[in-house]
Amino acid sequence: MWHVPKIREACGVIGMCSPGSVSDYLYFGLRILQHRGQESAGISVFEDGKHTIVKGMGLVHQVMDKDRLGHLKSNKGIGHVRYSTFGVSALQNVQPFVVQTTHGEVSLGHNGEIINAEALRTDLKKKGWAFMTSSDSEIIVRLLANELSTHGDPVKAIKNLMGIIVGSYSLVVMIGDRVFGVRDPYAIRPLCLGRLNDGWAVASESVVFDNLDGEFVRDVEGGEIVEVACDGPKSWKYPSPKEKAHCMFEWVYFARPDSIIEGGLVYEVRKRIGSKLAKEHPVDADVVIPIPDSGRAHALGFSEVSGIPYREGLMKNRYVERTFIMPDQRERETGVMLKLNAIKSEVIDKKVVLLDDSIIRGTTMKQIVQILRKAGAKEIHVRIGSPPVTAPCYLGIDMKTRHQFVALNRTVEEIANVITADSIGYLSLNGLIECIGVGDNNLCIGCLTGEYPIPIEGERVRFQKKIDAF
Amino acid sequence: MWHVPKIREACGVIGMCSPGSVSDYLYFGLRILQHRGQESAGISVFEDGKHTIVKGMGLVHQVMDKDRLGHLKSNKGIGHVRYSTFGVSALQNVQPFVVQTTHGEVSLGHNGEIINAEALRTDLKKKGWAFMTSSDSEIIVRLLANELSTHGDPVKAIKNLMGIIVGSYSLVVMIGDRVFGVRDPYAIRPLCLGRLNDGWAVASESVVFDNLDGEFVRDVEGGEIVEVACDGPKSWKYPSPKEKAHCMFEWVYFARPDSIIEGGLVYEVRKRIGSKLAKEHPVDADVVIPIPDSGRAHALGFSEVSGIPYREGLMKNRYVERTFIMPDQRERETGVMLKLNAIKSEVIDKKVVLLDDSIIRGTTMKQIVQILRKAGAKEIHVRIGSPPVTAPCYLGIDMKTRHQFVALNRTVEEIANVITADSIGYLSLNGLIECIGVGDNNLCIGCLTGEYPIPIEGERVRFQKKIDAF
Amino acid sequence: MWHVPKIREACGVIGMCSPGSVSDYLYFGLRILQHRGQESAGISVFEDGKHTIVKGMGLVHQVMDKDRLGHLKSNKGIGHVRYSTFGVSALQNVQPFVVQTTHGEVSLGHNGEIINAEALRTDLKKKGWAFMTSSDSEIIVRLLANELSTHGDPVKAIKNLMGIIVGSYSLVVMIGDRVFGVRDPYAIRPLCLGRLNDGWAVASESVVFDNLDGEFVRDVEGGEIVEVACDGPKSWKYPSPKEKAHCMFEWVYFARPDSIIEGGLVYEVRKRIGSKLAKEHPVDADVVIPIPDSGRAHALGFSEVSGIPYREGLMKNRYVERTFIMPDQRERETGVMLKLNAIKSEVIDKKVVLLDDSIIRGTTMKQIVQILRKAGAKEIHVRIGSPPVTAPCYLGIDMKTRHQFVALNRTVEEIANVITADSIGYLSLNGLIECIGVGDNNLCIGCLTGEYPIPIEGERVRFQKKIDAF
Amino acid sequence: MWHVPKIREACGVIGMCSPGSVSDYLYFGLRILQHRGQESAGISVFEDGKHTIVKGMGLVHQVMDKDRLGHLKSNKGIGHVRYSTFGVSALQNVQPFVVQTTHGEVSLGHNGEIINAEALRTDLKKKGWAFMTSSDSEIIVRLLANELSTHGDPVKAIKNLMGIIVGSYSLVVMIGDRVFGVRDPYAIRPLCLGRLNDGWAVASESVVFDNLDGEFVRDVEGGEIVEVACDGPKSWKYPSPKEKAHCMFEWVYFARPDSIIEGGLVYEVRKRIGSKLAKEHPVDADVVIPIPDSGRAHALGFSEVSGIPYREGLMKNRYVERTFIMPDQRERETGVMLKLNAIKSEVIDKKVVLLDDSIIRGTTMKQIVQILRKAGAKEIHVRIGSPPVTAPCYLGIDMKTRHQFVALNRTVEEIANVITADSIGYLSLNGLIECIGVGDNNLCIGCLTGEYPIPIEGERVRFQKKIDAF
Repeated sequence: MWHVPKIREACGVIGMCSPGSVSDYLYFGLRILQHRGQESAGISVFEDGKHTIVKGMGLVHQVMDKDRLGHLKSNKGIGHVRYSTFGVSALQNVQPFVVQTTHGEVSLGHNGEIINAEALRTDLKKKGWAFMTSSDSEIIVRLLANELSTHGDPVKAIKNLMGIIVGSYSLVVMIGDRVFGVRDPYAIRPLCLGRLNDGWAVASESVVFDNLDGEFVRDVEGGEIVEVACDGPKSWKYPSPKEKAHCMFEWVYFARPDSIIEGGLVYEVRKRIGSKLAKEHPVDADVVIPIPDSGRAHALGFSEVSGIPYREGLMKNRYVERTFIMPDQRERETGVMLKLNAIKSEVIDKKVVLLDDSIIRGTTMKQIVQILRKAGAKEIHVRIGSPPVTAPCYLGIDMKTRHQFVALNRTVEEIANVITADSIGYLSLNGLIECIGVGDNNLCIGCLTGEYPIPIEGERVRFQKKIDAF
Repeated sequence: MWHVPKIREACGVIGMCSPGSVSDYLYFGLRILQHRGQESAGISVFEDGKHTIVKGMGLVHQVMDKDRLGHLKSNKGIGHVRYSTFGVSALQNVQPFVVQTTHGEVSLGHNGEIINAEALRTDLKKKGWAFMTSSDSEIIVRLLANELSTHGDPVKAIKNLMGIIVGSYSLVVMIGDRVFGVRDPYAIRPLCLGRLNDGWAVASESVVFDNLDGEFVRDVEGGEIVEVACDGPKSWKYPSPKEKAHCMFEWVYFARPDSIIEGGLVYEVRKRIGSKLAKEHPVDADVVIPIPDSGRAHALGFSEVSGIPYREGLMKNRYVERTFIMPDQRERETGVMLKLNAIKSEVIDKKVVLLDDSIIRGTTMKQIVQILRKAGAKEIHVRIGSPPVTAPCYLGIDMKTRHQFVALNRTVEEIANVITADSIGYLSLNGLIECIGVGDNNLCIGCLTGEYPIPIEGERVRFQKKIDAF
Repeated sequence: MWHVPKIREACGVIGMCSPGSVSDYLYFGLRILQHRGQESAGISVFEDGKHTIVKGMGLVHQVMDKDRLGHLKSNKGIGHVRYSTFGVSALQNVQPFVVQTTHGEVSLGHNGEIINAEALRTDLKKKGWAFMTSSDSEIIVRLLANELSTHGDPVKAIKNLMGIIVGSYSLVVMIGDRVFGVRDPYAIRPLCLGRLNDGWAVASESVVFDNLDGEFVRDVEGGEIVEVACDGPKSWKYPSPKEKAHCMFEWVYFARPDSIIEGGLVYEVRKRIGSKLAKEHPVDADVVIPIPDSGRAHALGFSEVSGIPYREGLMKNRYVERTFIMPDQRERETGVMLKLNAIKSEVIDKKVVLLDDSIIRGTTMKQIVQILRKAGAKEIHVRIGSPPVTAPCYLGIDMKTRHQFVALNRTVEEIANVITADSIGYLSLNGLIECIGVGDNNLCIGCLTGEYPIPIEGERVRFQKKIDAF
Repeated sequence: MWHVPKIREACGVIGMCSPGSVSDYLYFGLRILQHRGQESAGISVFEDGKHTIVKGMGLVHQVMDKDRLGHLKSNKGIGHVRYSTFGVSALQNVQPFVVQTTHGEVSLGHNGEIINAEALRTDLKKKGWAFMTSSDSEIIVRLLANELSTHGDPVKAIKNLMGIIVGSYSLVVMIGDRVFGVRDPYAIRPLCLGRLNDGWAVASESVVFDNLDGEFVRDVEGGEIVEVACDGPKSWKYPSPKEKAHCMFEWVYFARPDSIIEGGLVYEVRKRIGSKLAKEHPVDADVVIPIPDSGRAHALGFSEVSGIPYREGLMKNRYVERTFIMPDQRERETGVMLKLNAIKSEVIDKKVVLLDDSIIRGTTMKQIVQILRKAGAKEIHVRIGSPPVTAPCYLGIDMKTRHQFVALNRTVEEIANVITADSIGYLSLNGLIECIGVGDNNLCIGCLTGEYPIPIEGERVRFQKKIDAF
């Protein structure tokens, strides 16, 4: 599976307050989070009493002229990179959104997906609201602005908003000159807090702090509203269940290996998954080969436990791969062959264990198996670092239709047949839960089980979480 | 004065319904109206049950790929070209605006300016409305959507909207699959009705019908709501004063000479103005020279009455001029010298009458006088086809600050001194009214007298117009 | 006929030496000459001992960033705007060309056309020369470089070059840090000398000096090599015929009306032509209407002599017209209707005299006649400010094929029929010669008579000019 | 060391003849060779009797519109990607070069560097040749054209060319409709022959054949001229020494790991180098960490022999990295920190062996050592897969100045100090030679020893190779 053309991208957010200028930090922070969304990018900073926004379609460095950003003198701001999960991909949907309210401007960036968006939209239309975009984030920002105008108090407004919207959301919000990070009560999408440039920041992943010479402090909690102020973070809590529903896919695939999510270094989780796979699905083989770059940590773990040597048997053409991030159908049609090539000497006459993080449709995996086959592999045993995906995601990953899943209504033998492998072994659900290490009752595994942490029309609820008192 | 870098641009609108495809007609219609706004352009068409929009910053042919437009099969649509009069010039303000309501999508394009926009914005913010743009047209479209969701009836919604907004507005509105043209009760900005491609259309100027092989039918009346349907236009009236307030600047400068506004061919009005000037401010001279291209018709009229021969004594560099439409300050600094050059043989040792339509700041006129002086003109007598501009416009022209007007608190002798001319003669107010020919009580002459047709805070009202009964 | 989409564009050149920086002057000089070529633009300046070049496809202000030009500190340089007459239009053909020789770098810009280019190319290929472009200007610059390497003396090298190449050429040449203007012995294309920024310059048209606050001094003579040095121009002469062959089309159409060519102000020549037409082809009519912008001076002259009033009966859409300069076939297909519109009041029920400078294919003229007809003109009498074009140009105008000429093998009645006019009157050849005023034997009228000033294979020579002694 | 911002890029070439269309194959072939040059790209195909060229600055997919390429129906063509080693990086230097000769057009793409380019240029200038570019490839193509015009015979012309130019060159040449691959007598730069699309092709690296479903056949030999014709390759030999001088850097760094050069799979050579390093410079450590992506194969080899586990302890930000290929100095200033991040769990309190292929200036390596240090590494032992680089390359790698080399005049201890490592171990020269496996006398190791295979002014020759008889 590819890092880039995968059909499961999300968004990345950052919010910051520092004694020095924040625009460079927002710019580089978004570049570090670029793997979370390559379709559009934007920042909003508080400057001269106003929210000034720079945004557009494309990669961060294409959208923003770093030199011009230098002229944005501001101590506060938010940023967003996006890969559409909801709302047609178009200029008008590029975040952050900025709206004008009676209590000043509100800028907002959103990672996640609102389950009751359409219901809210219908209700609000009936009240005479006219929607300017197709994004569920417009609903959020306008509801927030509406609350703000009623109460005047940013924190109360955010809390009221959290009482209305249901779903996954890691938000960065700037209200006037105050910057907040907000995470949904179930803590589905990641958000963490850290120090940056002698100030404070929230960001989707801890790697932002590592890379920018800052310091990761802790995850933002589910239901937490944290204000990043220069004199230290302030925190409020919205009543939330004790048990969370972190998206398991963040560890399995989304997040960068060098990020720490809920206490787990993603790289280590993936290595543990590889080790566990070696125990659950051992195989007599000559080499362990990862699909670059997503399967490397898994393969190292598998190799360590199995004793089968790790080899770089597939070589990537980084230049071909890169164009795949453009939403340009012509390019997508180019075959996998141009992107990957086998190292014959590591493959020929060998029994190969092939590692990757997950399988959605199976089409790419089939092509890769054939590349190895053509290079002379004797046997190919696919090992996948997660259980079969068989149900849609409604909480932020763009997998909406069931019929695309290769694992739906197929036995593992049948799946192996489809992808033309000699065998396939999926990580067990228990194995996954154990490797992630936050406990069964703190994970969203809806796409694996069809049971979701939040009631969704037409789907089963896994178990209703109890809400803490205020 | 220049056609292009003038500080008084407006907007152009078009709305259309035809048995054949409208997209090409909208495209060419906007190109024909391009002189009314060069900053952004856009169209919205009804296709497959949805409003599909193409818009962006730039000239019409830069924003829209005519070939791709060909794929937009639609019988209904609206279009807009814009030069910012209100709202920062930015991508998010590009029209048409499209909003989603409980009664379908609403697209809207606006030429004009809403006087009570800020008051409405403040009120609506207090009600919790969050504004996504800085444009007063967002207020219009969202109020309209709000009314629509209450009543469900497009025409009633438009009428209710007209009861809320005050100011100048020529609107093109598409509600679901119905296309309307709306003109404010005072008929301040132009809007006319005609036949196009076997269907019907409204457009800012009649020249659209001439150029596209259609047929100009009549002006839309003040307070009229006209639906352009394929089986013929339908009309409703909002209670409106009998006496109108057409912007006199449309005849003097804005509109194309080949357009007919309120029954007056603009070219003829300008020629009459030139003739009138020859009577009001006769001068002993050798040649009549227009400032190209805006002063030509005036100069022909002056020449005809005075008997002084008309000459093309100033030559334009069309290539230099063109770059001035880009909002690029560096280019604006380039002097007039690059744009205009005197034809020495027509000027040397001659007494010159120099004709233009109006003077705002006088800086350009001063440079032109000096170009003629340098080319050897013996005397230079400036004749201006409108009275001195001494007050701001609040109804659609971007002249907001009084101190910029060269004529403010200066005698004509003092003005002649400032622009280094031997004399200057402005058309009298009565002369202007007579030349336009729609009557004193049907014109807005606020920028000439400081008395406006509509009450404006801090300004005098000219005379309150009586509203007709329903 | 249009100023822009005409099929007869040329090139413009400028060369300059001044105590101050020349880059701004080259930039603005080329913008002033932009009407001579809109396809590509470039400059080469002498800086830090090297020729530094900025060039590309597009208009001057698109190709060059004026701000960056400011960093080019140089006292010497040349510039070029181009509309392809020979050589496919492509990036590699953009001038100036710069080559490295044993005596330093040579930069060259060329306006004109070399008759023996193909013969030279063939000969030189046989000698083993490999040509990097399809432009005849590469032949010139490489022959010049070849001569330079043999003799070391720039002036001698230029003279030897002039002994090899045959045709029309106005060259700007920079050899090391010396800047030269060169005009072919017959002085076919224009080139003039003047003062600029306290230095000296050569340029295609005198209007450059007018517009940039310089001073036109004189035309460069046929066969003259002039060095523009800061301490004054130096001049050498290549043996040349006393009688010249100035292209008559420069006065008729190419040059700006405010330029002076061979002592004749173009505007005045065109007015005289109009007057002459009124005598040669009088007509009983109500109005004289020019085709804007090319027919205005002609129409003024016609009006003055005939007493028939001059009117602006055709209105141009400047925004539509502009896109025609892009070599984009789709745009060209757009009809004349979008570009021109009749002013009905000046046309209806009137007998119209319609003035333009020339007719090539007649297709555009036919469309314009029909626009006037549709606007109600009673009669339309076309008057053309030059004799019928019936033969190709080999000396710099892109009219190579005979069959395109509407006047070929047709009587004037037949031509009137083709363009659907009531009558057509062409200026007589003698009339043209008289109006230009440089004498029959000093003009190239090959496209009118099929007899050329220089022997051309397959064509007749008009009369062999005698060469002066050295 | 980075794959991308390294200061040692080269060029890639491809030439092809097939019964089907070649344009897609050239396009994808260049994309597969993109790692050899990212600055410009171009192809030339034989179509309708002419050489049609598409080229420009940028990556292959930016320069060429794949859809439009589809319209180029041609069975023959060549392609080139370039990273400037000689000649200022500019549009005019983009290859292939196409020239017109008396025996048809000649297109040429060149990977390598001509030692006597300046001497040839000077001589040819004296003969009156004017050079249109600063590229040594212009010298090649024009000398070739010159020979061709003398002899008419393409093969003889190429042979004569080979008698004139000295240096490294892998050429693709199209003369009329014949396509040739040419490799210098010392076989310094790679070039290989294979089957493609039922036809034949030459390309810089064998991976082109793997990726495009073709078949690698053999390397082109030093001094060989091979014509790729549809009915099979034809071969001629220029007298060449038996002993070759293959650039050792191709195996060490340039070529893709999955390419086979002179019989050695690059990946295997690198793994052998890693193994050899483990023997030459053993170290007591906890983990072996590669610098991604260039050090991976080396690290796997080191791990295998040493028994120290291989770990992915450094994580790349692929999005930051990518912008580095743009020649934009601002971007280059961005620190290594943004591109690389340590995986703390693999590094903290560990003794780390850090593997990379080579060190040039040492600045990047120092930053990486510090990233690991900051992440908690106890000891850092750098192991480099090649001997110290201490001398310039004159044969195709852009390392011209000695003072940049960190290893020059420093002991290994001093180098370790500079890069702040606990130790550094370079592969021995004998070790390198052994690992590559083509023999000491078949390698160019000039940059390691200062002794070159070809006489270069001011430098020592390693040993004069004997030339075979014809």
